[in-house]
Amino acid sequence: MNNSKISRETLKNMKRVLIKIGTSVVINSDGRVALGRLGHIVEQIADLLREGKEVVLVSSGAVGVGSLKIQQNLVLSMPLRAHVTGKLTVDPSKSSVCAATGQSGLMALYEMLFGHKQISCSQVLLTELDLRYPRRRANLTETISTLLSLGIVPIVNENDVLGGLNPEPNEEALFWDNDSLACLLSKELGVELMIILSDVEGIYKRPPTGNQKPEIVHTYVPGVTEITIGNKSKVGRGGMQSKIDAATTALDYVNAVVIASGYILNTITGIVEGKKVGTLLASNADTDDDMSTKLASKAKEASRILQGLTSEQRKEIIIAVADSIKKRQAEILEENQKDIKIAESQSISRSLISRLKLTTQKINTLVTGLIQLAKSDEPLGKVLHEAELAENLILKKETVPLGLLLVIFESRPDVLPQVAGLALKSGNGLLLKGGKEAANSNRILHEIIVDAVHKCNEAVPKEVIGLVETREEVKNLLAMDQYINLVIPRGSADLVRYIQQESKIPVLGHAEGICHIFIDEDAPLERVIPIIIDAKTDYPSACNAIETLLIHEKWPKQNVTKLISALELNKVELFGGNKASILFDLPQAQGFKTEYGDLGLTIEFVSSIEEAVNHINTYGSGHTDSIITDNKKSEEYFTSQVDSACVFTNSSTRFADGFRFGLGAEVGISTSKIHARGPVGIEGLLSTKWILRSTEEKGSIASEFNSGEKQFTHKVISTKY
Amino acid sequence: MNNSKISRETLKNMKRVLIKIGTSVVINSDGRVALGRLGHIVEQIADLLREGKEVVLVSSGAVGVGSLKIQQNLVLSMPLRAHVTGKLTVDPSKSSVCAATGQSGLMALYEMLFGHKQISCSQVLLTELDLRYPRRRANLTETISTLLSLGIVPIVNENDVLGGLNPEPNEEALFWDNDSLACLLSKELGVELMIILSDVEGIYKRPPTGNQKPEIVHTYVPGVTEITIGNKSKVGRGGMQSKIDAATTALDYVNAVVIASGYILNTITGIVEGKKVGTLLASNADTDDDMSTKLASKAKEASRILQGLTSEQRKEIIIAVADSIKKRQAEILEENQKDIKIAESQSISRSLISRLKLTTQKINTLVTGLIQLAKSDEPLGKVLHEAELAENLILKKETVPLGLLLVIFESRPDVLPQVAGLALKSGNGLLLKGGKEAANSNRILHEIIVDAVHKCNEAVPKEVIGLVETREEVKNLLAMDQYINLVIPRGSADLVRYIQQESKIPVLGHAEGICHIFIDEDAPLERVIPIIIDAKTDYPSACNAIETLLIHEKWPKQNVTKLISALELNKVELFGGNKASILFDLPQAQGFKTEYGDLGLTIEFVSSIEEAVNHINTYGSGHTDSIITDNKKSEEYFTSQVDSACVFTNSSTRFADGFRFGLGAEVGISTSKIHARGPVGIEGLLSTKWILRSTEEKGSIASEFNSGEKQFTHKVISTKY
Repeated sequence: MNNSKISRETLKNMKRVLIKIGTSVVINSDGRVALGRLGHIVEQIADLLREGKEVVLVSSGAVGVGSLKIQQNLVLSMPLRAHVTGKLTVDPSKSSVCAATGQSGLMALYEMLFGHKQISCSQVLLTELDLRYPRRRANLTETISTLLSLGIVPIVNENDVLGGLNPEPNEEALFWDNDSLACLLSKELGVELMIILSDVEGIYKRPPTGNQKPEIVHTYVPGVTEITIGNKSKVGRGGMQSKIDAATTALDYVNAVVIASGYILNTITGIVEGKKVGTLLASNADTDDDMSTKLASKAKEASRILQGLTSEQRKEIIIAVADSIKKRQAEILEENQKDIKIAESQSISRSLISRLKLTTQKINTLVTGLIQLAKSDEPLGKVLHEAELAENLILKKETVPLGLLLVIFESRPDVLPQVAGLALKSGNGLLLKGGKEAANSNRILHEIIVDAVHKCNEAVPKEVIGLVETREEVKNLLAMDQYINLVIPRGSADLVRYIQQESKIPVLGHAEGICHIFIDEDAPLERVIPIIIDAKTDYPSACNAIETLLIHEKWPKQNVTKLISALELNKVELFGGNKASILFDLPQAQGFKTEYGDLGLTIEFVSSIEEAVNHINTYGSGHTDSIITDNKKSEEYFTSQVDSACVFTNSSTRFADGFRFGLGAEVGISTSKIHARGPVGIEGLLSTKWILRSTEEKGSIASEFNSGEKQFTHKVISTKY
Repeated sequence: MNNSKISRETLKNMKRVLIKIGTSVVINSDGRVALGRLGHIVEQIADLLREGKEVVLVSSGAVGVGSLKIQQNLVLSMPLRAHVTGKLTVDPSKSSVCAATGQSGLMALYEMLFGHKQISCSQVLLTELDLRYPRRRANLTETISTLLSLGIVPIVNENDVLGGLNPEPNEEALFWDNDSLACLLSKELGVELMIILSDVEGIYKRPPTGNQKPEIVHTYVPGVTEITIGNKSKVGRGGMQSKIDAATTALDYVNAVVIASGYILNTITGIVEGKKVGTLLASNADTDDDMSTKLASKAKEASRILQGLTSEQRKEIIIAVADSIKKRQAEILEENQKDIKIAESQSISRSLISRLKLTTQKINTLVTGLIQLAKSDEPLGKVLHEAELAENLILKKETVPLGLLLVIFESRPDVLPQVAGLALKSGNGLLLKGGKEAANSNRILHEIIVDAVHKCNEAVPKEVIGLVETREEVKNLLAMDQYINLVIPRGSADLVRYIQQESKIPVLGHAEGICHIFIDEDAPLERVIPIIIDAKTDYPSACNAIETLLIHEKWPKQNVTKLISALELNKVELFGGNKASILFDLPQAQGFKTEYGDLGLTIEFVSSIEEAVNHINTYGSGHTDSIITDNKKSEEYFTSQVDSACVFTNSSTRFADGFRFGLGAEVGISTSKIHARGPVGIEGLLSTKWILRSTEEKGSIASEFNSGEKQFTHKVISTKY
């Protein structure tokens, strides 16, 4: 035991590990041996040994194996009549018989499993006497240490057949089960990390209710961490309390204990790799390990304070932030230089570095933007609907903040103050995760912002905007739907897809931008060429650039030839669908779901506008699609039938953008049909609340309206629907 | 082989099963034996045997096991220098050496794994000769059949050491790998079901792109089912095509083949239990098995047609539906009687039966409601925002249908036509799942509705409204986010929670309604009593009934006593928080998260309005909470700080209801802050679309605005924000 703080990270450095496997891991609920689970545990132990760890195994389960064996033998020797008349079970009082019978079977199993990993194991059966007398104890310790140094896995168990003997008169038993045996052994062997595997995932914050599994406590400090232990549930007081007791006792001897599930893949390797598996118990645990929870809960709390401020107060805060950024820009540029230097030393691409780089001009733009935002219309408390339900009973639907946002962005540090401004304006708490490459810039910007917020209005804690620094934390946060209301990823398609897959919280954004332009049969060439070139080449990696061009078969072929020449002149690399690749000798496209992200473009012919629309609805990503036509009917059909967030006529798809749409600051572009769709302005950060106010002296009672005593008037006073 | 249709269900009855395990299942990517996976496979085979199945195993992997063994031996015999200088790998050309070495290791492994399940297995190594000559073949068949009848698992493999011999001159090889061996063997042994386990989950509909795993084809009929096989990806043409080829060949001899993953838990037992695991291949497969996919895709297709209709056309359809329900009400009542009779025979509660029962009056109300809905304002195509972005460039944001809805409801069959009406009005396709107890009523109502829709407008297919009949289908549908846009569960908290957990699609609704009323210090008693009694007793099982009453400590104690008496007079069963249970001798409440759903009510005292708000935000469900007060400041604080969908003053929480709010038909009550919140009317079934129309002769090009050649005007023409 040492005194430095124990965190998940420090588990990586612990060399001597004791793994205690409970009966429920070894034996299935039907009484049979869980081969799959044991095999996987042995695989993981092999991984640990390969990394130079020493592993002691304390395995329960012999009784279970034995009872199975005995039962089988009895069945074999049973008279026919017994087979016919009834089931046979083993007398549970004879568990030592079962243990004796089972021990050899269990060991044979481990021998074989380890054998397949080219690992030797050895059986160590202990009685009280082996641990009671110093010389025997020394002998035991030396034997096991020698085994460990040879890379052999000692498999320890209580010698049940002999262990039943009473301890010396007037003395208490030293150990009474494998949990207490594991504790004693850990002490003798100087074990650093003890892993207790059973059928629960860790220590729960409170007892399970109904079908809901409660949250796991990731870090538990005995006597400090508070949890609620139930008195009724199956995994309630009994099981959980005794596990905590055993672990707490063990902490007198080992640095850390982890309680985890033997049912989950890669539990053991996960623990020694420092992952958040199960519950880590340590007397001096670094509870900042649960930083994600703290970050989120503090930000949520602070967001309620922000929400309670007046419009004027929030405006002042944003202006204070802008002023502070302007004043402290030297610090910002200095920190940004650090990031640039690191990036340059890693030979990162020029375009990335230019995105990373902050300049006085960029900062000025930022400051101007923040001041504009501060002075813009108040988004909160807007009445979207107002109605008199009955005399003296007025209903209003008003805009309110969502609560807490998690925004994940890449490279450009100027996103941070922009997003912070939007959150403050909309009364939302904010958690921010920027790119690693901008770590220094993000840190100073975050510091300046929260300092300014708190200085301007002391009621608002700095925690209202939290900076998340690791990927691991992001993963934790994505599960915290009790605190976070919306996740906004701003970055690569891979980032967005990862977030969408991992998140339990609604995600605003889009993973793909497979945009189309359809050239109708009558489209004038002089309109087609500039639009297509703009849509493909203005910014090819943007999500609103086109990836596929659909051409009506009746569009003159000489036009197609001219269009192709114009595109090639602009370095567009063309691919063809089945028809286009044959007709114009283009290389075959990989399929219609390709987002090139560069100057690649797929061309295909369609025989009708219906086919074009169908193609877009099948292969598109519901982002932005445009038609070039002079035919009003085509225009109508296209705009009504294409099922995308943005549908354009005779325009480049590049107009799909919050600024170009005049929405002010853009929160993101959503391809979801839920909540917000297309380019999203600040309204995407809002929800609504129904407020019903009664001015009836007696108060308003619903049943009076059932009985007909009172009537609803349902007069709409104003509505935005 | 027989000719009846093969479905997942029929797999249950197939007795003789051949399981072919690929190398990737036996050997991990790091070249080591996958003990966990193999152990689990053996466990599952044990389950199959216990159910009376006969199992033949064809296992690859011997080469992998052998190469490991050889490598280890070489390392052991290596001179020290070699250890220091470099790694050692086995010459891959010597795979037959590896196989010979590995075969014994692999068999020993299986022997041991099966041994632990008290199952015997036996090794069967085959060469060409054993299958080529009739007498040897007969001998082989007889031997294996005898093994099977004894419950012994034959583990078959190509005898690699001998198998390398050329076949007879001028003859083709009979088998060349374990896939073809498995086919031949199936034929000889009369195998009914062949399971091919590898590292892919089944046959993909199209090749994987990026990180996205494509959908699995659940049922594949060779020569009928269409899939796209990629030519580049790792699991592309090679692997997938050869698997399909082998399975297709095998179908000449076996009834069904399932291609599935050996990496997923309970794959084998799942398959023989008829679950949708992997891809089922059969020449005469019942593709209705994929009914859920068909239902959803057809409804989505049909929804696009509905969406293209005019407002007038949709109105006519709803009126036609109403007329048809009126005309055919005798049929409806007749079918409903069947449900009632079944329910009565099952001694189902009276209140449930009254919910189930349709009457002429209920049907008349329904019809009136539908006609009102038909004539109500058009919800689609409403312009929520209109702006001139630049000269000749007009942007509009219009309401559009969401697409396809899945509504799951319980008991009351009158919900079906109501929801159908809402879907038709809002231009959405609809999938409906009603309660089993109303199966007959739902079926006739569905039939009448879709008949009327299609008769009124032949362009709209009947599939626009689909009736889902099983729970299994609901589960499948909840994963189909490519078709379904919103799920609306209307039923018990358990139902909603289940849906929320399972669904990949956004869910509109609420699992809990833990509503509060806070009695402020100045609240007049004559207002308090009727409001509390209404909120608790008007309809105790409704979600907007109160569960917790928070009382300001300064509210006169004699008032509390009177309130308690009044509640007890109304049969309300009171429980107390820590303070209330001591002060007024009430039984202790289980906690503050209880939704009684009956006349239970928790009472607790709070020392301030801040504590009340904090309590509500901590323990409430964000549904509806009310304050009783005469203090304007308290009112303001409460309505702004309570973070719930509905916040009321001096009113019963029972007003939280779409009808009472004057929203017309209620879609549901949402406690989510995303999309729609609180009682949701038809607007909850809508999304928006941005339509940008250019009337610029040259078309509109974004880069002209970058260069300053053109300027945005950004004139808002109208807006609802």
